[in-house]
Amino acid sequence: MTHDLTLVIGGAASGKSAWAEDFVESFGLPKVYVATAQAFDAEMTAKISAHKSLRGPGWETRETPLIPGDALTDLPADRAVLIDCATMWLSNVMLAEADPAHATDDLLSALGACPARIVIVTNEVGQGIVPDNALARRFREAQGRLNIRLAAQAGRVVQVVAGLPNLLKGAL
Amino acid sequence: MTHDLTLVIGGAASGKSAWAEDFVESFGLPKVYVATAQAFDAEMTAKISAHKSLRGPGWETRETPLIPGDALTDLPADRAVLIDCATMWLSNVMLAEADPAHATDDLLSALGACPARIVIVTNEVGQGIVPDNALARRFREAQGRLNIRLAAQAGRVVQVVAGLPNLLKGAL
Amino acid sequence: MTHDLTLVIGGAASGKSAWAEDFVESFGLPKVYVATAQAFDAEMTAKISAHKSLRGPGWETRETPLIPGDALTDLPADRAVLIDCATMWLSNVMLAEADPAHATDDLLSALGACPARIVIVTNEVGQGIVPDNALARRFREAQGRLNIRLAAQAGRVVQVVAGLPNLLKGAL
Repeated sequence: MTHDLTLVIGGAASGKSAWAEDFVESFGLPKVYVATAQAFDAEMTAKISAHKSLRGPGWETRETPLIPGDALTDLPADRAVLIDCATMWLSNVMLAEADPAHATDDLLSALGACPARIVIVTNEVGQGIVPDNALARRFREAQGRLNIRLAAQAGRVVQVVAGLPNLLKGAL
Repeated sequence: MTHDLTLVIGGAASGKSAWAEDFVESFGLPKVYVATAQAFDAEMTAKISAHKSLRGPGWETRETPLIPGDALTDLPADRAVLIDCATMWLSNVMLAEADPAHATDDLLSALGACPARIVIVTNEVGQGIVPDNALARRFREAQGRLNIRLAAQAGRVVQVVAGLPNLLKGAL
Repeated sequence: MTHDLTLVIGGAASGKSAWAEDFVESFGLPKVYVATAQAFDAEMTAKISAHKSLRGPGWETRETPLIPGDALTDLPADRAVLIDCATMWLSNVMLAEADPAHATDDLLSALGACPARIVIVTNEVGQGIVPDNALARRFREAQGRLNIRLAAQAGRVVQVVAGLPNLLKGAL
């Protein structure tokens, strides 16, 4: 099975989602957007809405906050998929008190089994000062481990800084 | 009009200012330093003073904390300008409760209209854990958007890590 | 004296230690691990133990939390040394209320005098939002200055993002 997975990693407001969307557009295939964000409060609702309007029309949207794998099972090879983002998904997993490592196993299996071209967006969260609270420290450990595993499985890894791509693996 | 804009982006204490100063020196032109920092407290006063002594002599200094564009209007093409930094400027804008997006429009226009060679320094602030307070989250969103717009307009973008340049756009 | 120093810089949980260990293994020399971490609490004890089991057998371990130079004095050229990490060491220095700049002088001298092949790991901590407390701000300034000096002395600097190397200086 052809497997084409791209990981797009960047900081908050780094332009990573916009870059990933343009990259998915460039495939010239029908587009599927797998949303992982949950609108718990007004700030998040506004953010989801802003992202949606930036994304523009022409996307089939699938919302699977906890199990993005479910959104991938019936997709044929001629689809371009954007999963945005692994950080929100990890946050959902940890809020649900599921085990991040097991959940990551499932996610990676689903990604590996899907013949479509997939781009998954994730956050770099480990380059600041050590957070005061233990939960934040646990989250950044889990996020780091998730990013390492996604990067290992991906054929292409792009770091986005100020909207610009910095290729870390594979070719563009 | 020849337009030569370089964006230098890096974390706190990454050596970005020192690298930017050396880069401006390498142009071999009369140097203008556009200071955006305001000395509100002892920590900031010490920081400004330390930066000034690192910078050494030979700079014309212009202080325009809110409107760096004002410092650029009368500069001829044979000047090398260092604006340090966009993060302080954004902080001033937000403290003054001005709209960051409009202020950025004005800044980009002023940069585009100035024939001198300009290097502008900015901070990467989005690669840590999500901040607890809403103002800090608003700031990192605004900083990210500003960095994306500066990087889009710049012909050259350099990320500085541990004092070393990582070229993201253009050539050195 | 042949001097072969590599700096490996990355965020928390970026895979920098694992990458550095693999790199040290690739030298094909007897391996020495210079540990700088101190087990003050349960979280740190667990982290040290996890790192140790990841590292696997075949390492001579030397623990010198404050003066890694002491661990280097008698090492011959045909040794591969991993110092993990400069951030823990700096934290120890600051907890002991020693002067970071002087301690760095001593560290750099010891690194420069040692004929073995040395890889030193350090953290990027300056790419988040400005920390609320003054000690954290002092730490990230000191860490930034330390990283700049280590990078200047090293012949090779590698930034690790999601387990992947991004070469900033020298060759791999």
